[in-house]
Amino acid sequence: MANKKNLLLLFENPGEPVFTQKGKNHAVFELPSRFFDERYQPIGAEIQNRFSDDAGERIPVRDIQPPNLNHIGFEQLGKQDNFTLFIPKHRKLASALSDIFLKARDIDHLQSLAVYARDRVNPQLFNYALSVALLHRPDTKDLDLPLYIESFPGKFLDSRSFVQAREEATVVPQGSRRPIVIPRDYTGSDLDPEHRLWYFREDLGINLHHWHWHLVYPFEASDINIVRKDRRGELFYYMHQQIIARYNFERFSNHLSRVVPLSNIRAPIPEGYFSKLDSLVASRAWPGRISNATLSDINRRADEIQLNLSTLERWRDRFLDAIAQMAVTTSSGQRIVLDEVKGIDILGDMMESSILNPNPDYYGDLHNMLHMVLSYQHDPDHRHLESFSVIGESSVAMRDPVFYRLHQYVDDIFQQFMEKLTPYTAQQLTYPGITITGLQIQTENVKTNVLNTFWRQSDINLAKGMDFVPRGDIFARVTHLQHSPYTINIQVNNSSGASRLGMVRVFMAPKYDERGQQFSFREYRRFMIEMDKFVANLRPGQNTLKRRSIQSTLTIPYERTFRNLDARPTGSGEDAYNFCGCGWPQHMLIPKGTPQGLPCVLFVMISDYEQDRINQDLAGTCNDAAIFCGIRDRFYPDKRTMGFPFDRVNRRGAETLQTFLTPNMGIADISIVFKDYIPSSIPLN
Amino acid sequence: MANKKNLLLLFENPGEPVFTQKGKNHAVFELPSRFFDERYQPIGAEIQNRFSDDAGERIPVRDIQPPNLNHIGFEQLGKQDNFTLFIPKHRKLASALSDIFLKARDIDHLQSLAVYARDRVNPQLFNYALSVALLHRPDTKDLDLPLYIESFPGKFLDSRSFVQAREEATVVPQGSRRPIVIPRDYTGSDLDPEHRLWYFREDLGINLHHWHWHLVYPFEASDINIVRKDRRGELFYYMHQQIIARYNFERFSNHLSRVVPLSNIRAPIPEGYFSKLDSLVASRAWPGRISNATLSDINRRADEIQLNLSTLERWRDRFLDAIAQMAVTTSSGQRIVLDEVKGIDILGDMMESSILNPNPDYYGDLHNMLHMVLSYQHDPDHRHLESFSVIGESSVAMRDPVFYRLHQYVDDIFQQFMEKLTPYTAQQLTYPGITITGLQIQTENVKTNVLNTFWRQSDINLAKGMDFVPRGDIFARVTHLQHSPYTINIQVNNSSGASRLGMVRVFMAPKYDERGQQFSFREYRRFMIEMDKFVANLRPGQNTLKRRSIQSTLTIPYERTFRNLDARPTGSGEDAYNFCGCGWPQHMLIPKGTPQGLPCVLFVMISDYEQDRINQDLAGTCNDAAIFCGIRDRFYPDKRTMGFPFDRVNRRGAETLQTFLTPNMGIADISIVFKDYIPSSIPLN
Repeated sequence: MANKKNLLLLFENPGEPVFTQKGKNHAVFELPSRFFDERYQPIGAEIQNRFSDDAGERIPVRDIQPPNLNHIGFEQLGKQDNFTLFIPKHRKLASALSDIFLKARDIDHLQSLAVYARDRVNPQLFNYALSVALLHRPDTKDLDLPLYIESFPGKFLDSRSFVQAREEATVVPQGSRRPIVIPRDYTGSDLDPEHRLWYFREDLGINLHHWHWHLVYPFEASDINIVRKDRRGELFYYMHQQIIARYNFERFSNHLSRVVPLSNIRAPIPEGYFSKLDSLVASRAWPGRISNATLSDINRRADEIQLNLSTLERWRDRFLDAIAQMAVTTSSGQRIVLDEVKGIDILGDMMESSILNPNPDYYGDLHNMLHMVLSYQHDPDHRHLESFSVIGESSVAMRDPVFYRLHQYVDDIFQQFMEKLTPYTAQQLTYPGITITGLQIQTENVKTNVLNTFWRQSDINLAKGMDFVPRGDIFARVTHLQHSPYTINIQVNNSSGASRLGMVRVFMAPKYDERGQQFSFREYRRFMIEMDKFVANLRPGQNTLKRRSIQSTLTIPYERTFRNLDARPTGSGEDAYNFCGCGWPQHMLIPKGTPQGLPCVLFVMISDYEQDRINQDLAGTCNDAAIFCGIRDRFYPDKRTMGFPFDRVNRRGAETLQTFLTPNMGIADISIVFKDYIPSSIPLN
Repeated sequence: MANKKNLLLLFENPGEPVFTQKGKNHAVFELPSRFFDERYQPIGAEIQNRFSDDAGERIPVRDIQPPNLNHIGFEQLGKQDNFTLFIPKHRKLASALSDIFLKARDIDHLQSLAVYARDRVNPQLFNYALSVALLHRPDTKDLDLPLYIESFPGKFLDSRSFVQAREEATVVPQGSRRPIVIPRDYTGSDLDPEHRLWYFREDLGINLHHWHWHLVYPFEASDINIVRKDRRGELFYYMHQQIIARYNFERFSNHLSRVVPLSNIRAPIPEGYFSKLDSLVASRAWPGRISNATLSDINRRADEIQLNLSTLERWRDRFLDAIAQMAVTTSSGQRIVLDEVKGIDILGDMMESSILNPNPDYYGDLHNMLHMVLSYQHDPDHRHLESFSVIGESSVAMRDPVFYRLHQYVDDIFQQFMEKLTPYTAQQLTYPGITITGLQIQTENVKTNVLNTFWRQSDINLAKGMDFVPRGDIFARVTHLQHSPYTINIQVNNSSGASRLGMVRVFMAPKYDERGQQFSFREYRRFMIEMDKFVANLRPGQNTLKRRSIQSTLTIPYERTFRNLDARPTGSGEDAYNFCGCGWPQHMLIPKGTPQGLPCVLFVMISDYEQDRINQDLAGTCNDAAIFCGIRDRFYPDKRTMGFPFDRVNRRGAETLQTFLTPNMGIADISIVFKDYIPSSIPLN
């Protein structure tokens, strides 16, 4: 049987043919002659010899009856076309191809099918479909997928860096190569106030997370269980709500007001955006969105999309009708009540929308199509044969300022529902016998309750993503935000007389709004960013809980974003890195703050774990960053509505955060201080 | 002394460092160690050995004191920035660098200076400045410059073709390579009526001509004689007037009305354009212009341009004031009358404007700045750090439909002047004793007075323009318009009793306007395209003049656009190809016509050569395509105002073309028939 790890080689150099050398060992797939495509068929033998001659490893590929790929091949989506999950036609192609890979009866067949398909379908489609299959097949789910940025660095890095990298790789011998330094401010200037947020919007880790989230939660599959994951609709709502809260936190750190929702799709959009990205595979730059342009009806036959702005408005109205009635109508005319437990999950499925949408003809495809009308602003009727701009594709969409306006608007709709739910009573929030008596945050060698942020430079290996370049490592050096690691200390009194388990929920928010005034609780709940959530054992009497920043269950470790998989310390074993890629990047856990120190509030609540727990076995699963990503093949590990206790508006009498507090909650005034420098050495653990 | 032909190697692979192998012989420049730039200084010796080891030829470079390039180096214009002559700052950089090359005391020094400068200034700037220097230095002006497209193919061909070419060059051995076929319709779809003109706007030869014209006629130089060429202002007017006439001819061939002048720069511009070009060197795609956008004031500090739309309008008004008064005011307050002989030349210098503009502070820089406001439509204040779109650079500007709207407007201004000149009397137009008695056009094996057009495919070698790709030819195959060669037969009676010399002037125009009606002469004169102009000897009595299409003095031969210089038949010698690159491409001599046959009028006039002649020696000069390009280092070879006899409006009583005719003129009804196919073999001579 074939070594399944060789499947991962198919992700490398996606623009090169399948028969070129891959991987550290310069491995070559030995193709059955009928596997060569039309271009290489006549010279197949010659080509195979040429690349096999000095190969470090030859991988035999079993000759099988080739599958028919006409329905997903270049006729449907060209080799150099762009691919996005937001277009229903593309979702269908991806689902059809994943299906072929999922149904392969063993690794041998899977390898043959994947090798055969690789140069016959769009490379981005291939990457996505094979990734979904490997993540969901029982015999491959333990494989550690390469980072998406390694296959498609062009979606993450300034297009100019690749010209420089090509020179470095061609001219300079391995030992003397220098990393290509990517400037911080390549996409805009400070004339554009929105540009201040570049470090958030263009962060590699954030965009990788967003891509990975959509990989873990596909919109569509012929096996509905791949889509129907526990509380996926709710997670769609919550993760995006949190992204907006974090974005507003960053805006306050940059003297900008909260983001304006895209509530009027007829008005000009002041925020233009030019990503400066090029598609290395497609060889088309991502089109820009000019400032102050307006949206139009779109009608693009090649994408099979015909959509009027009025249709979007009608979908929105039906959505709001459902919320007003607290019930939705399914395709078969059934009425489903939107209750406290499943309501937001159903709304999330409808909004996104996935194939779980209970009535797609009626409630439509609001979120995806908002992305598309924005992404086709520059060529709504395809007369100019332009592809979508970055807002139209999940691995690059978060770069565009309009992403946040769109999702603020989506969140406003969701919140209309959340605000109709009955507020928690003080009793519901209380954990009898548990009292938080003290709360501090501590960064080493820094005053208590001060967090530090600064710049850090990290390297990304371009070798596997640059096609037709001499082999060998070549790095791009990016600058990103980083914070000093810190510890949260919580003093808890347990007067219940017995040991208790508590679910510790950690949130943070700016202390003041953009006018410098206090928030009402009703407003404040939407600004709270979740930082961590963990289970703690509380002995009777006084306890001190210490929780380190790198333990956060929101984040995946720095190494997952920036370290070369090949460069792993082999001694540490696979397990040390056995997480699944989805998760907020650790280096973006703390918002930027300000040089003077941005006043913030740290909030901790300890709830009764006996009421919150989900009984399941978590051994061997991906559970590194459950808050945004859930746990693979398991239930979401918290029975509460996501965002608890800020998921609902306040009870009467608790109009501020202070009055909202029950004894099992605590707050602390803290401050985030940003220093505009790159420390020469950084303590990171 | 160095072989001056080696200077031409410096144009190859402009993104590669100067020390890589160049040319057919794999020649290597051997750099003095201090010539290596900062990046390669530490590893200079190693690098030099690496590329010299298997070099076919080593070119010693004399070590000279390196010039100071701070004022024109990357601080001023980055390596990956785009370059255009329309920006005054860029013109100054070009002029400063040309100057260094022009003043080098001999070829050895020139080679050292050029080798030293090559990797220290912007590659496009380098190409332009060295080209200007080689064209104007007495000791290099006989060098045959490589085609601009060979150095910068990315400015002429679909960006996608380069990814395919890179694959072909890397994977496929030389003997088995296939040309990369560029689709006809890659920039737009027929939803855009303007797209019908793609074959004209995006023609390689037309764009190369436009680039070359600006190379031959620089705007600026420290030696004013390089700018002050005979009648350059008039030629600026006339060449662009003719381009518009030809464009309208093509529009009529495609059932489109004449182009609408850009007379209101405040109105939205319906014609968007997305060039689908990428800058291989700059690694930034050329930005698109979206449909229906409006222009804005521009303020871009990096380009040193701050310009309000109202300034453009004020310059236009001063221009029209000058025409109303038939006089301009110089910077020193002098008044210069705009007369019949020099008036249009002065207006051309003012409009363009070059350093010959008699009062640049007052009359401004109207034409160049119209290009710039259009090219910065998408990012007027540089907040998005975007470069100019194609309308902002002469080698790509003619691709954009708005180029023609701009130049129709510019021509409308010029024509306000031309229409004020006194019409020619019948006597002034007559050539006593000379009568045209017959006129036909003949294509081989085709009915008399029918011209044929069709598609043709031609190949362009990308090898010298793709950086960091294995050496070896790799071709792109483009589709372009072509016509069958034809002969014009003119029967002339000379009743003067003696041999006479006649200047034969050949024009053509559509017979009907876009409504299907006849033109008035006043209108018609602006639709006449000049096809040829030549001197004929007229013996007493009946003469038959035969003139073949390939003899046209408007055009340069097909081979100049499409043949690889290296692939020249060596037997034929350099001389056979010794023309200078400027000139309308022969394959675009005839407008497209229609499948049904577009009715046209052929016009011939024979004027008295004794009145028209310029006495000068033309031996050894570039005089292949004098109508649009003049003759290098000589006077324009026709004493008449350019466009004669259609330069002025008609005398009273000659309100139609028929009544305008004098005996020395003739017309014939002809027809242009387009067939939508690619003939397998084409008779081209």
